[in-house]
Amino acid sequence: MRDVAIVGIGQTKVGEHWDIGLRHLALEALQGAMADAGVERVDALYVGNMLSGALVGQEHLGALVADFAGLRGVEAVKVEAACASGAAALRLGYVAVAGGLSNVVAVVGVEKMTDAPGPEATSAAAMACDADYEAAHGLSLAALHALLMQRYMREYGYTKENFAPFAINAHANAMNNPYAMFHLALKESTYNRARMVADPLNLMDGAPIADGAAAVVLAPVEWARQLNPAPVRVAASAVGTDAVAVHDRRDPLLLDAALLSSGRAYRQAGVAPDDIDFFELHDAFGIMAALSLEATGFAERGKGVRLALDGEIALRGRVPISTLGGLKARGHPVGATGVYQAVEAVQQLRGQAGGSQVPNARLGMTQSIGGSGATAITHILERIV
Amino acid sequence: MRDVAIVGIGQTKVGEHWDIGLRHLALEALQGAMADAGVERVDALYVGNMLSGALVGQEHLGALVADFAGLRGVEAVKVEAACASGAAALRLGYVAVAGGLSNVVAVVGVEKMTDAPGPEATSAAAMACDADYEAAHGLSLAALHALLMQRYMREYGYTKENFAPFAINAHANAMNNPYAMFHLALKESTYNRARMVADPLNLMDGAPIADGAAAVVLAPVEWARQLNPAPVRVAASAVGTDAVAVHDRRDPLLLDAALLSSGRAYRQAGVAPDDIDFFELHDAFGIMAALSLEATGFAERGKGVRLALDGEIALRGRVPISTLGGLKARGHPVGATGVYQAVEAVQQLRGQAGGSQVPNARLGMTQSIGGSGATAITHILERIV
Repeated sequence: MRDVAIVGIGQTKVGEHWDIGLRHLALEALQGAMADAGVERVDALYVGNMLSGALVGQEHLGALVADFAGLRGVEAVKVEAACASGAAALRLGYVAVAGGLSNVVAVVGVEKMTDAPGPEATSAAAMACDADYEAAHGLSLAALHALLMQRYMREYGYTKENFAPFAINAHANAMNNPYAMFHLALKESTYNRARMVADPLNLMDGAPIADGAAAVVLAPVEWARQLNPAPVRVAASAVGTDAVAVHDRRDPLLLDAALLSSGRAYRQAGVAPDDIDFFELHDAFGIMAALSLEATGFAERGKGVRLALDGEIALRGRVPISTLGGLKARGHPVGATGVYQAVEAVQQLRGQAGGSQVPNARLGMTQSIGGSGATAITHILERIV
Repeated sequence: MRDVAIVGIGQTKVGEHWDIGLRHLALEALQGAMADAGVERVDALYVGNMLSGALVGQEHLGALVADFAGLRGVEAVKVEAACASGAAALRLGYVAVAGGLSNVVAVVGVEKMTDAPGPEATSAAAMACDADYEAAHGLSLAALHALLMQRYMREYGYTKENFAPFAINAHANAMNNPYAMFHLALKESTYNRARMVADPLNLMDGAPIADGAAAVVLAPVEWARQLNPAPVRVAASAVGTDAVAVHDRRDPLLLDAALLSSGRAYRQAGVAPDDIDFFELHDAFGIMAALSLEATGFAERGKGVRLALDGEIALRGRVPISTLGGLKARGHPVGATGVYQAVEAVQQLRGQAGGSQVPNARLGMTQSIGGSGATAITHILERIV
């Protein structure tokens, strides 16, 4: 197995891109990443996307994006793992380069969710849940997370207001990210007064649906320095899964998939949570941020919210999260999100995170979660010194 | 890179499975393949599927199928490349084992198209076409193939009746396949009198939509004999792409993606078309069978239909195709089809194809095509002697 590096990154601004289509978003991110890497061809293209069929009426994104990006002929497929689709594409790109099947691989995550001709995005996103045993009974992702949050509050004695620091931290960090959807400092009072979506989860707690695309170029580490002066090594890449339906899991408040995938990643990289300088986690909702921190070993069970209340998730805290806005404030174009996390981690490791820079960041972790936790994909990225 | 073998195969009967769901179909195929390989765990699961979102309201099939099959926790993702989704999953499984990232991998292709709560399957399948420049103007896959057939007839001087041998051969061969959807010998007069779908393409020319699942288990060749007394080596695995919209291609009657992917596969395996003992091609329509034979070097341009008229596609012809029914008569559960082709090729190479056995088959080729030709995925399989 070869060591793999990220040698190029690209991204579009996250937002409501009513003027351009899905393929244009993918193109912009891909061209950015390829220019950053200084490559004009790749051996393979992996496209991460969840909802193009439901929302845009377009499948077959591998060939479509490859051709539109001037890569006609190249090996190209789409990869789907619900909300972790982008991270799944990154994982498969990693597998191809690490195993020596491809040398230079492009990975693009793309999603167009607003102004789409298809059904409402919330019901489309519920296809990440169990269609027969959850979605058919009216459960959306917001409803499922509200149930998890309710249970968490009851088990561990928190109030819904205690979840505010996750959103506030994300919005504060997004102020420094020109690609973020929101540039609004969120006040605690605004969070507490926000319209209820699914009790106890309110509008300021959930990540917004959005349009966007992010891309990376991967190559073997030994070639990396020729392609980019600041390559970043993929120290670990791991996928874990669990039952799709929450009621089938051994414990609804334990993200077993995240536990598995982070455990595999720590072993591969030979590191522990304490070694991680920042953690781009899947803060689709505050409860998910808390459960992720717990499953990956940054907090004990029931202490994820406490970590946030104590300010330890801030840029200079013990485990900075959502450093460029996270899903909550950068925005959550579902199938693109996992690649945005990787792009932002590379920005941190290159020292290009501006006002959101984590001082002296050397080791960053990203974790993308599908649905309410059935897929978790973890990457550990390392600055090559 | 390691040599990879197929050490287990499984499949459901293809048909209208109104009594069971998508996950049950996948389970049946997967259990069959794992039992055949004698394994109870795998390192990763790749699910090939195109339409579960549109037709069943379910994405996230990686985790869903893994859990339902008793593989909770395992690395699992869904792969999509339109009608070539199953073959794309096989390709990624191959990449993982060849590169040493995984040792034992399961690949399952699954599709449930009949009795589905979603939109009509034909319009869903049109998501394989260019949504903005083809499907939005009313073009279905049948309509696109009718245009290609029309152009082919005009260019090369054939009649629509000349395409009958593709369907007749497929139906004859399916008589020997207990898993095939149709067990009806097709008469030339029935083909010629069949109801028109999109002139000149009639109901007997197109492959039926269907439900079904097929699976294989992959492992390194060096382990293969311990797992299965009759392992089959994957001598080549290659993907090629092209523009999704037919009007964007350099020549509508030349399947560039098929040319590219078969060329890559021939080079990898070190063989030429003459070495291939049988060819499981993508006969979604007769015209696609003809164009595939031409793009892969079994016939000159314009001579694919001639090859069929001369009987050379029969079991004892120069290049037997659709030996267990092909898409046309085994049935075409879209995202499963690419894996069915591999399963049937293994049956041939093991000498288990019954009345459809190609005498002394040593080298078989499969090719799965996405949409009207934008993705082509070729595998060459070899009996290990």
